[in-house]
Amino acid sequence: MLKTIEYIDGVVRMIDQTKLPLDKEFVDCKTIDEVGNAIKTMVIRGAPAIGVAAAMGVSLGAHSIEAKDFDTFYSQLETMCDTLGKSRPTAVNLAWGIERMKRVARENKDLPIDQLKKRLEQEAKTVCDEDIEINRKMGLNGQTLIESGNTVLTHCNAGALATAGYGTALGVIRAAVEQGKDIQVLANETRPFLQGARLTVWELKEDDIPVTLITDNMSGHFMRNEKIHAVVVGADRIAGNGDVANKIGTYMVAVLAQKHGIPFYVAAPISTLDLTLASGNEIPIEERSSAEVVSINNRRITPEGIDAAHPAFDVTPNDLVSAIITEKGIARPPYVETLRKLAES
Amino acid sequence: MLKTIEYIDGVVRMIDQTKLPLDKEFVDCKTIDEVGNAIKTMVIRGAPAIGVAAAMGVSLGAHSIEAKDFDTFYSQLETMCDTLGKSRPTAVNLAWGIERMKRVARENKDLPIDQLKKRLEQEAKTVCDEDIEINRKMGLNGQTLIESGNTVLTHCNAGALATAGYGTALGVIRAAVEQGKDIQVLANETRPFLQGARLTVWELKEDDIPVTLITDNMSGHFMRNEKIHAVVVGADRIAGNGDVANKIGTYMVAVLAQKHGIPFYVAAPISTLDLTLASGNEIPIEERSSAEVVSINNRRITPEGIDAAHPAFDVTPNDLVSAIITEKGIARPPYVETLRKLAES
Repeated sequence: MLKTIEYIDGVVRMIDQTKLPLDKEFVDCKTIDEVGNAIKTMVIRGAPAIGVAAAMGVSLGAHSIEAKDFDTFYSQLETMCDTLGKSRPTAVNLAWGIERMKRVARENKDLPIDQLKKRLEQEAKTVCDEDIEINRKMGLNGQTLIESGNTVLTHCNAGALATAGYGTALGVIRAAVEQGKDIQVLANETRPFLQGARLTVWELKEDDIPVTLITDNMSGHFMRNEKIHAVVVGADRIAGNGDVANKIGTYMVAVLAQKHGIPFYVAAPISTLDLTLASGNEIPIEERSSAEVVSINNRRITPEGIDAAHPAFDVTPNDLVSAIITEKGIARPPYVETLRKLAES
Repeated sequence: MLKTIEYIDGVVRMIDQTKLPLDKEFVDCKTIDEVGNAIKTMVIRGAPAIGVAAAMGVSLGAHSIEAKDFDTFYSQLETMCDTLGKSRPTAVNLAWGIERMKRVARENKDLPIDQLKKRLEQEAKTVCDEDIEINRKMGLNGQTLIESGNTVLTHCNAGALATAGYGTALGVIRAAVEQGKDIQVLANETRPFLQGARLTVWELKEDDIPVTLITDNMSGHFMRNEKIHAVVVGADRIAGNGDVANKIGTYMVAVLAQKHGIPFYVAAPISTLDLTLASGNEIPIEERSSAEVVSINNRRITPEGIDAAHPAFDVTPNDLVSAIITEKGIARPPYVETLRKLAES
């Protein structure tokens, strides 16, 4: 499996996820702005991976600062962080990664600036390493919900490519398979960016996990025909009440799952929780360019001059969420209590 | 607007709907087998249009028969019809168009064969002309359900291109606009064949009806945000109890509409009713090639060797259907009674 993101010799190297799986190209970011641009253009995507990229981006920014006193250094770092923080609005892990780096800077304000820069670089690498560990724990927790013989539906890519490695939703599936369970996966192709068709099926095939690709509008049909036993998806931000922002189409899958009595699970690290928000209504939903809807592989699928909408995420209300799987354990309703308890544990 | 299908000088000419809207090419069918192939490969699609094509195909078949007595003629015609009838399984209009032509042949068995062939050709042209009239009546009936200011969601293409002209679901929208109502349309792109992105938005734009293209997984989001007031779709076959087979994804839209208290209307001619079937469970669902899922515009969207599923239709149970709009009036539940009454009226 290719590495989603790596920090080597002052360069943040990412596999270009807009080109996978047909082309395997890497993007090397040497500045915090280049990292911000890679996030914006979805060279790297997936909430946890964005969190890692953000931390590494802040380290690149720190290295570029020439100030010799902490206050000037920190003030310049904050300005850079503000810009980076605006690259995508929905995934809270972006803010989380940035905040973690700023906190480490403040906690080490007495270090000489050169050592502080090294400390920040080390922290960014730790964020990356920790993410894989977190996903493995999440997988072990979540696989208890999946039985051998199950067919699991997933939407978008909440896999190794959405994280530093192993994945959140796909981490749960990987852990179930590692426990010896016989699991089949149905992968929604996930228009418009086709993360399911391009990334999820590719990842699972590399791991020899049986996967069948479907278009997003087929999952209702397969649920009605009793071909799906559980749904597992990732999340970009989870409000304090358990409302989940995730890739556009997740809400549709959740409504269909409830209609058919199929459990709907969300797998996400604690860093995806935003307990400052009372409900999902407060989560900003990114509107992306309609150009991403009207063309596929750079060829138009619709006449010139057609309007298209492109909300990139939707919000699934907590009453449709059977459980939220984290590295610290599994939360069940009422989420206002259980999520806070997990976050504080 | 280009004509979906025409019968001129012994040739059945169809606009090639696999190429629209980027390329405007016509396919000329000179034999019943060529018509069957055009139906199978979706050069022509949409239940009413398939019914018209079937009638014209039978006429081409009749012209090719050299037998001089009715019994031999009819026996050869039946063999040809059996093959044509297998070109696609779900839309009942295919069987309906063929049966209508066979009935006309039997009713005119005493005509000289040459005159019988002309009679059948005339019947095929009548089927085509009637279809447009039927759609206009259906539109007038259906538009009473749509209020000025409404945004209407549609799935797939149930428009002029799915019929001889004017359309079923889009006929309802056209009629509402012709009545002076202010209507906005949201069009699901309808993977894998993209009938919404390619055909529906193109048709509506030609008629200056405001339309916004969305991916199939966005409709739930827009319903939840109160942006959709009604859903109107077509049908490929309606069972006696009002269960509706239509393009894959229709079921998903119907479940979401019910969840949000949005009316879900089906517009279809009486020829789409199959009162011989007690429920939608008996409707055969066509499985098409997975090649149509794994590639778009002849370019793969997923790695080689990936399995994909491709059920081309799904069944929406009658409890999700607010009303069925036909040329003879609007049926409401209980459909077992109201559909039979309409069919017999």
